[in-house]
Amino acid sequence: MSHISSRINETERLAADIERIHELAEALLPHIGDAPEIPPTSSEAAERLSALTAILHELHPADVATALEHLPQKERALVWALVKPEEDGDVLLEVSEAVRESLIEDMNEAELVAAVEDMEADELAELADSLPDKVVAEVLKDWDDEERAQVRAAMSYRDDQVGAIMDFETVSVRADVSCEVVLRYLRRFDSLPDHTDKIFVVDDHDILQGVLPIRKLLVSDPDDLVENVMARDIVRFSPDDDAEEAAAAFERYDLVTAPVTDAANKLIGRLTVDEMVDVIREEGEADMLNMAGLQEEEDLFAPVLKSVRNRWFWLAVNLGTAFIASRVISHFEHTIAQIVALAALMPIVAGIGGNSGNQTITMIVRAMAMGQLSGIQALHLLKKEIGVALVNGMVWGSVMGVISYLLYHNTGIALVMVAAMTLNLLLAALLGVLIPVTMEKLGKDPALGSSVLITAVTDSGGFLIFLGLASLFLI
Amino acid sequence: MSHISSRINETERLAADIERIHELAEALLPHIGDAPEIPPTSSEAAERLSALTAILHELHPADVATALEHLPQKERALVWALVKPEEDGDVLLEVSEAVRESLIEDMNEAELVAAVEDMEADELAELADSLPDKVVAEVLKDWDDEERAQVRAAMSYRDDQVGAIMDFETVSVRADVSCEVVLRYLRRFDSLPDHTDKIFVVDDHDILQGVLPIRKLLVSDPDDLVENVMARDIVRFSPDDDAEEAAAAFERYDLVTAPVTDAANKLIGRLTVDEMVDVIREEGEADMLNMAGLQEEEDLFAPVLKSVRNRWFWLAVNLGTAFIASRVISHFEHTIAQIVALAALMPIVAGIGGNSGNQTITMIVRAMAMGQLSGIQALHLLKKEIGVALVNGMVWGSVMGVISYLLYHNTGIALVMVAAMTLNLLLAALLGVLIPVTMEKLGKDPALGSSVLITAVTDSGGFLIFLGLASLFLI
Repeated sequence: MSHISSRINETERLAADIERIHELAEALLPHIGDAPEIPPTSSEAAERLSALTAILHELHPADVATALEHLPQKERALVWALVKPEEDGDVLLEVSEAVRESLIEDMNEAELVAAVEDMEADELAELADSLPDKVVAEVLKDWDDEERAQVRAAMSYRDDQVGAIMDFETVSVRADVSCEVVLRYLRRFDSLPDHTDKIFVVDDHDILQGVLPIRKLLVSDPDDLVENVMARDIVRFSPDDDAEEAAAAFERYDLVTAPVTDAANKLIGRLTVDEMVDVIREEGEADMLNMAGLQEEEDLFAPVLKSVRNRWFWLAVNLGTAFIASRVISHFEHTIAQIVALAALMPIVAGIGGNSGNQTITMIVRAMAMGQLSGIQALHLLKKEIGVALVNGMVWGSVMGVISYLLYHNTGIALVMVAAMTLNLLLAALLGVLIPVTMEKLGKDPALGSSVLITAVTDSGGFLIFLGLASLFLI
Repeated sequence: MSHISSRINETERLAADIERIHELAEALLPHIGDAPEIPPTSSEAAERLSALTAILHELHPADVATALEHLPQKERALVWALVKPEEDGDVLLEVSEAVRESLIEDMNEAELVAAVEDMEADELAELADSLPDKVVAEVLKDWDDEERAQVRAAMSYRDDQVGAIMDFETVSVRADVSCEVVLRYLRRFDSLPDHTDKIFVVDDHDILQGVLPIRKLLVSDPDDLVENVMARDIVRFSPDDDAEEAAAAFERYDLVTAPVTDAANKLIGRLTVDEMVDVIREEGEADMLNMAGLQEEEDLFAPVLKSVRNRWFWLAVNLGTAFIASRVISHFEHTIAQIVALAALMPIVAGIGGNSGNQTITMIVRAMAMGQLSGIQALHLLKKEIGVALVNGMVWGSVMGVISYLLYHNTGIALVMVAAMTLNLLLAALLGVLIPVTMEKLGKDPALGSSVLITAVTDSGGFLIFLGLASLFLI
């Protein structure tokens, strides 16, 4: 973190640090590889090694994580070996899952146990999937029953559920005590949990009664009873709620923390805004990656074959749909043989349909992610998109019609062009609405490969419409 | 917000409310239009009107905003007229800019003044661009000099700068007082600003000395001096810092609020996590919309012509590039006339290049948004992407080579297919890295139309490579 005297901004400072780490690591690699425990032979290398170590020891674990994400595999291994062991756990929690795996591969069992044994239950649960089972068992052995139960509970939820990202650091008080008593109670803590902006008010059975915002506690009369100061109208979540929906609620109501309760309204944990920010960031990224046909977030510096694996599925789908489009065209080979100009014009019809369809589908996927779309409105939207397609078809269709005429001096070709473009834009609008709405109805992620799918439809459809009209009217 | 006794989750509750609002508004429209001040004639309509009003009066302003985003224009106007006037301002702040304009159009000057006159300076500054100048002038007339200066300051920054989204509600204390004194000072407030998780520590000239986290204040000995409890190593921002970079820092360091200081380190405002969450959400959306060639966030229910305006630019670009691709093909009309099968196979070559190029460019745009990419690493990435392209080209090229052979029983066509697919995938990898890296170097947003551009290259390039090879070797 920057010292108060420096005037360089956070991002510039971090970028400069990462650049320096990269340079030092690159220069050191030939000397020590990823085994910095062996003292380097040259004094220059020794200097570099101590400079690199000094930078890493000064950085916030989140910055170390960002630096590791930036580094090619070998430099990453070298730098990782130099990170303070007591920060290993924090760094593992901060890096993306793809990079986390590459870091864990570089650690032996004892190092892993040391890195995670002091974690909170929810943090261990988050890492558990990437850790060797032996390490998790080893760590849990020394924990008490309550903590073990918390880890098991957190691991029993899917990653996209509130239960998997909540933590267990709740501070709670009874409703019938005074604010003075609460303040004295808080003073007994060594430190309050991160992000504590409210105290949870529960009865003898831990049933949630309300929340006491710290902001209110600080300005209230010390003699006031908690029950007279607390808010009863609260936003709280259930562990099997959807994490993205919880994040949207955090965003709508500007929350910092919120209680998580079970079916009987018993307080079992809390959500904090920092986790929700990660959910929102990942949601946006996942939609973007999914639309483009990438299966998951990819370590930028992953080995080639790992990247091939992440991408092959949608490439295969694309090849399949391209094959269908190809068969559509080959069905009209006879027509093309007679008017070769059609072969040159057909990609224009397909292309504008794909582009326009992608605009529509992107807008709708985004609206769905924001929870802005329900069934009734889909019909309304469909009408609007068809209107947009008609206008665009007439305008751009005419433009291309005129251009085709100027190129080929053939009125028939020009008119077929106008009609085909308009029809393909209408098809793009129709499917641009129907594909995501249907995916959502089927309980699938509407972003998933939607770009590949709409392009498939507008390609095959565009060729079929254009060549079909040409066969009917021009031959 | 849900009452503590209910077990339905936030999202289901909101969706049900919106559905109900939509039904009521739709049924009411024929009776009263958007002028609910005229009492409806039928008792059924009167009942619906009071039911709708009751729902709207119970909802949190953020939920009213979400509901308005969901509604077609006419229903939106009807519902907007029923919202409690004292909540108008909060709702205007919550809705997207596109919808905000449609709401402001429905209000007269007096209503607008009433809606915004009690806002904070930063809130008025946020709305000022959408408000008629007369309204802003009218409101500022009654404000004091300090507030007017704050509004002017906030308006002097671009929307993507920290200065435009910071607020001025800072609570600050001196370093040489005791924690007890701070607690007593805080008790004098009617309420503390939203999200207050730390008190700013300043000297007599408002120069920032440190921050006192409330979490620490609550557990510290009342006699401790602030200077012994406060943190000196703090993350703080300058008003001309980039908002997205500030949001990334909030995310890295899990911040709730952070001070904003001028060049002399004088405290002038603060950033809060709720604004940062909006920045992160908008950033993800903007990248997604930009890649697909939408100029900006669009009101889902905008009139057709408005939507056409938002989309025409990239459609025109697409049409231009499709035209170039078409000219490439027409250059080879002679070849196609001899082997018509080429017309059917060429979209496969172009298609797989486009898909693969989009995968690469999406991954890189995302990495750039996360600040994960610098110049040096671009070369490393390029090598990797070319490796991926070679593997994919050989695998999928061979698959399509075999299929082409089975279809056309022509070894030449099959071999040209394998070679063209591999070369086009290499082209896609090369440009998939170079386009965003160059955009970034030129200071442009790398997401902007990147999908349209890469598809243009792989289309024209794919046709050129495939038909070129065919002309060389098959004719």
